[in-house]
Amino acid sequence: MDTPRVFNFSPGPATLPLPVLEQAQREMLSLPGLGVSAMEISHRSKWFEGVLDETTANFKKLLHLPDEFSVLYMQGGSRLQFSTVPMNLLRGTGKPADYVITGTWGTTAAVEARREGTVNVAFDNKAENYRRLPHRDELKLSPDAAYVHITSNETIQGVQYQVDPEWGAAPVVCDASSDFLCRPIHLRPYGMIYACAQKNLGPAGVTVVLVRSDLLERVPQGLHSMLDYRLYAKEKSLANTPPVFACYIVLLVTRWLLHDVGGLAHMHERNRKKAALLYEVVDRFPDLYQGHADPACRSLMNVTFRLPSDEHATRFVQEAAKRSLCELKGHRSVGGIRASIYNAMPIEGVEALREFMLDFARRA
Amino acid sequence: MDTPRVFNFSPGPATLPLPVLEQAQREMLSLPGLGVSAMEISHRSKWFEGVLDETTANFKKLLHLPDEFSVLYMQGGSRLQFSTVPMNLLRGTGKPADYVITGTWGTTAAVEARREGTVNVAFDNKAENYRRLPHRDELKLSPDAAYVHITSNETIQGVQYQVDPEWGAAPVVCDASSDFLCRPIHLRPYGMIYACAQKNLGPAGVTVVLVRSDLLERVPQGLHSMLDYRLYAKEKSLANTPPVFACYIVLLVTRWLLHDVGGLAHMHERNRKKAALLYEVVDRFPDLYQGHADPACRSLMNVTFRLPSDEHATRFVQEAAKRSLCELKGHRSVGGIRASIYNAMPIEGVEALREFMLDFARRA
Repeated sequence: MDTPRVFNFSPGPATLPLPVLEQAQREMLSLPGLGVSAMEISHRSKWFEGVLDETTANFKKLLHLPDEFSVLYMQGGSRLQFSTVPMNLLRGTGKPADYVITGTWGTTAAVEARREGTVNVAFDNKAENYRRLPHRDELKLSPDAAYVHITSNETIQGVQYQVDPEWGAAPVVCDASSDFLCRPIHLRPYGMIYACAQKNLGPAGVTVVLVRSDLLERVPQGLHSMLDYRLYAKEKSLANTPPVFACYIVLLVTRWLLHDVGGLAHMHERNRKKAALLYEVVDRFPDLYQGHADPACRSLMNVTFRLPSDEHATRFVQEAAKRSLCELKGHRSVGGIRASIYNAMPIEGVEALREFMLDFARRA
Repeated sequence: MDTPRVFNFSPGPATLPLPVLEQAQREMLSLPGLGVSAMEISHRSKWFEGVLDETTANFKKLLHLPDEFSVLYMQGGSRLQFSTVPMNLLRGTGKPADYVITGTWGTTAAVEARREGTVNVAFDNKAENYRRLPHRDELKLSPDAAYVHITSNETIQGVQYQVDPEWGAAPVVCDASSDFLCRPIHLRPYGMIYACAQKNLGPAGVTVVLVRSDLLERVPQGLHSMLDYRLYAKEKSLANTPPVFACYIVLLVTRWLLHDVGGLAHMHERNRKKAALLYEVVDRFPDLYQGHADPACRSLMNVTFRLPSDEHATRFVQEAAKRSLCELKGHRSVGGIRASIYNAMPIEGVEALREFMLDFARRA
């Protein structure tokens, strides 16, 4: 007897759309017309060429991406991007890179960047334990930055940009790992956007990189092949074997976004509705549910709050699990509760969590 | 109606054991007792900790691996290892690294190594288009090499070591991507063995690295985190999110090797039997099937031969496909036919190919 599916609030690897899993299950032994699994097929096959072409076309449709952007499919997660970004865009420029740090991942990105050149920390909200985004007049941007790095959503703290950062001339490089495709964006400020798959896109193991052609032209010579954005663009991500099965799942997720959800405006509406259902309860019981992020900077993806004591938090997590509401424990650096409600979390899961939170408050 | 499975002779990503695919299919929507897919579960979960622990234990059993070896789970394929090997083991040593080049992949590995230090080409069979391994007296090994790099099986040329290289004091670093776990090995010469998964282990996207503790101690300071073997060993490959689903499939493949096949001696016997079925036909019709590799260096994994003309080769591939014998076209640098018969290719597939080759010879 199969174990029934739970509502999975894991911060990542995270829940995937059920129709995607069902198609992967149907095709696990044999892709239609091919007689092999998506785990067993050559990356040089016509089928896989079609997978990458359609996925790229879907990203272009979803984001209204102009042709000056290349779409790369890489490995190593965002943490390898923390290194490849400065290798490709900072090394040898003689310029600084500006890092705007609004949580744990921005901090980690800056550590790797310092190995390649000068990092200017343009903002760091550590003193407030990362509750908010910068005000424009707090930002100490360099006049000649090679790029400005931001983290569009900080998974651990639950702090997210809701507006695209139009700050100046330097291209913005955005780690969008945990909120990629959660809303329509205005592309103008961005030179590069990267996202590991395991939150909004698919299984861990593939990282999507959107990079503008003028940034590709700056890539220095002599980089190791598998760390060189220009080579990925030139070889259409086929210089080595990409994670074929993971790319296939990403394709199915982009199809779901386009055809089932109806595009990013609809996805955004769903995400706002889901997040509001939870934040409304947080705000109704502020002594019990103590929100971490400043309300103006709250994430649509990761709802973070503390409870009055560790005992409350433990009981919350245990009682929720009994209702099949799983993986709600917060990260140790923030504590309390984190409900990750990425694109694929159905509204029914959020409604069930809201009901539980209301019930827990009545009994607290 | 599902498309029936074919016999898939792809060089990689390659065929997987059917029981592995069937289990992955059964568990695609919900792992037993957990209610989430293996694509949706945290790498910090007890379940995934168990996946990596059991996989490592299975490698140790299969290879009789002593505790001085760490098992790392990385991303980026063997081509990233071509770079991380010299970053970790050559950079800053002041010593040369010896590269023994017996095909395309060894050549490519040396290209990346030159970015990090001095490469001494100890052997290169390019003049013969890579048909054989070195004789001991042809090898120009350095007295003080940091390591000696070999490619245990050259997938494109079909040239494989059948004996472990006991050549000298320098540790051997072995790219075993296309023949890992195909036979028992004597570990003594090896300081490091690495293998991408997509031939003998699982889907593309995870790379297994076995590395001895004395080599880990040589890793220089200041490497980027995701390229630093020492960090992977220290953090048990959990410094970032590993490709969880790919690791789960690798676990199932190691279980299949241990419990269904019965270990590497049995696997080796199967592999020798499969390869002999094809090479026997090649040798019986030498004017038609012109073997590429020197018979003493023939691969058990990739059987490579040419036909008298391109027309013969095209007809061979097309007629074979009609019998559900697929992906037999050779690599352009060798031409003709390549039958990849990795661990998971069942003997029935090889017997069907043999019958076809005999029939084709009667009609040629």
